[in-house]
Amino acid sequence: MGPGDLITVKTKDKEYTGRLMPNEETDSLIIKLDSGYNIGIDKKNIVESKIHETLNEPKKGTKLKIKKDPKKPNITILHTGGTIASKVDYQTGGVIATFEPEDLIEKFPELHDIANINSQLVSNKMSEDMMFADYKNMIEAIKKCHDKSDGIIIGHGTDTLGYSAAALSFALEGLGIPILLVGSQRSSDRGSSDAAINLINAAYFIAKSDFSGVAVCMHSSMNDTSCAILPGCKTRKMHTSRRDAFKAVNDTPIALVDYKAKKIEFQKEHTKKSKSKLNILPEFEEKVGLIKSYPNMNPEQFLFFKGYKGLVIEGTGLGHTLVGKEDEYVKAIKQLIDSGTIVTMTSQCIFGRVHPKVYTNIRKYSNIGVLYSEDMIPETAYIKLSWLLGNYPKEKAKELYAQNLRGEISERLGTDFLD
Amino acid sequence: MGPGDLITVKTKDKEYTGRLMPNEETDSLIIKLDSGYNIGIDKKNIVESKIHETLNEPKKGTKLKIKKDPKKPNITILHTGGTIASKVDYQTGGVIATFEPEDLIEKFPELHDIANINSQLVSNKMSEDMMFADYKNMIEAIKKCHDKSDGIIIGHGTDTLGYSAAALSFALEGLGIPILLVGSQRSSDRGSSDAAINLINAAYFIAKSDFSGVAVCMHSSMNDTSCAILPGCKTRKMHTSRRDAFKAVNDTPIALVDYKAKKIEFQKEHTKKSKSKLNILPEFEEKVGLIKSYPNMNPEQFLFFKGYKGLVIEGTGLGHTLVGKEDEYVKAIKQLIDSGTIVTMTSQCIFGRVHPKVYTNIRKYSNIGVLYSEDMIPETAYIKLSWLLGNYPKEKAKELYAQNLRGEISERLGTDFLD
Repeated sequence: MGPGDLITVKTKDKEYTGRLMPNEETDSLIIKLDSGYNIGIDKKNIVESKIHETLNEPKKGTKLKIKKDPKKPNITILHTGGTIASKVDYQTGGVIATFEPEDLIEKFPELHDIANINSQLVSNKMSEDMMFADYKNMIEAIKKCHDKSDGIIIGHGTDTLGYSAAALSFALEGLGIPILLVGSQRSSDRGSSDAAINLINAAYFIAKSDFSGVAVCMHSSMNDTSCAILPGCKTRKMHTSRRDAFKAVNDTPIALVDYKAKKIEFQKEHTKKSKSKLNILPEFEEKVGLIKSYPNMNPEQFLFFKGYKGLVIEGTGLGHTLVGKEDEYVKAIKQLIDSGTIVTMTSQCIFGRVHPKVYTNIRKYSNIGVLYSEDMIPETAYIKLSWLLGNYPKEKAKELYAQNLRGEISERLGTDFLD
Repeated sequence: MGPGDLITVKTKDKEYTGRLMPNEETDSLIIKLDSGYNIGIDKKNIVESKIHETLNEPKKGTKLKIKKDPKKPNITILHTGGTIASKVDYQTGGVIATFEPEDLIEKFPELHDIANINSQLVSNKMSEDMMFADYKNMIEAIKKCHDKSDGIIIGHGTDTLGYSAAALSFALEGLGIPILLVGSQRSSDRGSSDAAINLINAAYFIAKSDFSGVAVCMHSSMNDTSCAILPGCKTRKMHTSRRDAFKAVNDTPIALVDYKAKKIEFQKEHTKKSKSKLNILPEFEEKVGLIKSYPNMNPEQFLFFKGYKGLVIEGTGLGHTLVGKEDEYVKAIKQLIDSGTIVTMTSQCIFGRVHPKVYTNIRKYSNIGVLYSEDMIPETAYIKLSWLLGNYPKEKAKELYAQNLRGEISERLGTDFLD
């Protein structure tokens, strides 16, 4: 049997059916299951195997000829990589992008009913490997298609989709159209993929609502029904594999969309489409770090960031990190601040708000100038600080860090930090 | 007005009543609100203020004389610090522990109805500052009171309570009695404190159930009704301030307890009390680190841990970190592994399971020897690796890391990583 063959193998107590993947290891098989995931099986555990079908690449059909309909909105789909709108190349085991508009519409014909679709390949990277340079490429691509698009969909790997959503939210000031980041947790050439529903719901939401701004469109539950439109600066991947992994944190979804039921339900106020002037602030400062606080950590870990312009601490509880017997952690952080680093505090609790005044230890940090981040999630705080330091002088960056610029900080309602 | 005075101050649009706290800053007041939290008020915003009562420390009553009842179980309460069972000293602004058994019973008389209470002050530290040395002190104190106790309650600050619960779970092999870690999100000298309910429910659960093992006892909802008994290795503080901040992750609560309704409901199977021999493995290796992966991070951050015996990566998604244009991240991590560091992978999604085989980038890491951590949360993975390297030789530590020792890894059900 060779890569791409449809096979069934039996082990002592289980049976797996799927396409055989290329594999450098000789003592195991890798099978791509119908779920879209690979499973590795030790050859010595296989008791029986069968080939159902040898590799037969689907024939390229005659390309659809798509006419632009002037009554339909124009949606541009930018592809950056990841599981969505990609398929497995069974010869190499790699994932290849199929991103001509015709290919997309062939795959998801509903798109054609909703809008005139243009598409462009920006990059083809798994999102765990995204760098600030990739953010700049995305922003450049958005700039180019912005004026001729009623809305933009960005196909993106799910691992760092939340970070990218925050980056675009900050970089695109005064955005008057919707930009939706869409990923999928299962690869799109598989039956169980969430790619189609996420993509179609995103297109439908762009076409049929008056929303503008950067948001995420992903499954709202484990069922293949509606998608949630999630706020660009307050969304986090909260599960490694579930299709409804993306959740609004310290916030609610903006809307729920269900293309099949032709329903859009807004959950909160939103910014409307407008002809406002787009102001692009595309820089991200490279010398910014993020560090998680944990028991017994080495205070020298903070000093690694000496010479950095910014550092976000993912502290504990209401915004603590260690103090130490002789305040050695406070001293390390003070060294950073004295040498010019902006140091800010968030919480690894993820949910809730940090507070600079509650406890004596916290006051040790706020007194040396650590900035508290309200209810910003650590990932957004990191992106915001990098963006601020890329586009503004230091003092202005500090001032803006404390302000809510793109919905990243919720208003504090009285003593709501106690809820 | 002076520290401890009960005052009301009005600002333009709000009014605050509470005890005045000591404050080194001269341009602001800090008031401890009835909620237990402090609020800082800029003096220039105060339009009116009133003193209701000057400091009047409560008179020490005559100590209760408590007789030991042989029919009641014996519970030892060990205090390590934190908000629970502490009160504010209005002279210094510090938090002081009141931890004689008589004081506790005076404060929470229900405890006396449930059990014979012994108590001991182990330390008085806010938990964000906990070090491995503090774990050893806790373990030492447990060792001393173990044989004369039917159960132990550990009063602990909430910030790193989850980490400590994992540390005790691993260190106390073959534990035949219940040990419950209890914290509070509001200080216990305040009306809204959750200290009483958490403590009383913990005592009731120890007295009335057959559970043994290390677990956490905290509010199960925002109402002051039942508490959840949460698994020692799978519990995480998931909110900065809510009383029900503690949640079981990739697991369910062990039980719900409601002292008022006299109800204990187990949610899953549990280990029973027994006369099994307690085997204490109290060491934690100091040269172990935890690092969070994020876009654009510096590969040198990994090399900080050169010379370390272990490093846990809090990766993205199914267990990724960056690869880099020239595999520079993979090379940095390989350098660590080649120099003897055990490197393991967890996910910042928190919920779900990592998987070493799904994607090409992940296989780059599993191929150089990064160990995948199944559905262990990053905090437990860090504690487990430190503990393994403190008590076992390297190869044995690697072998045990992959095994479920104390409930820290859930069994994988078929392809449940896809759920």
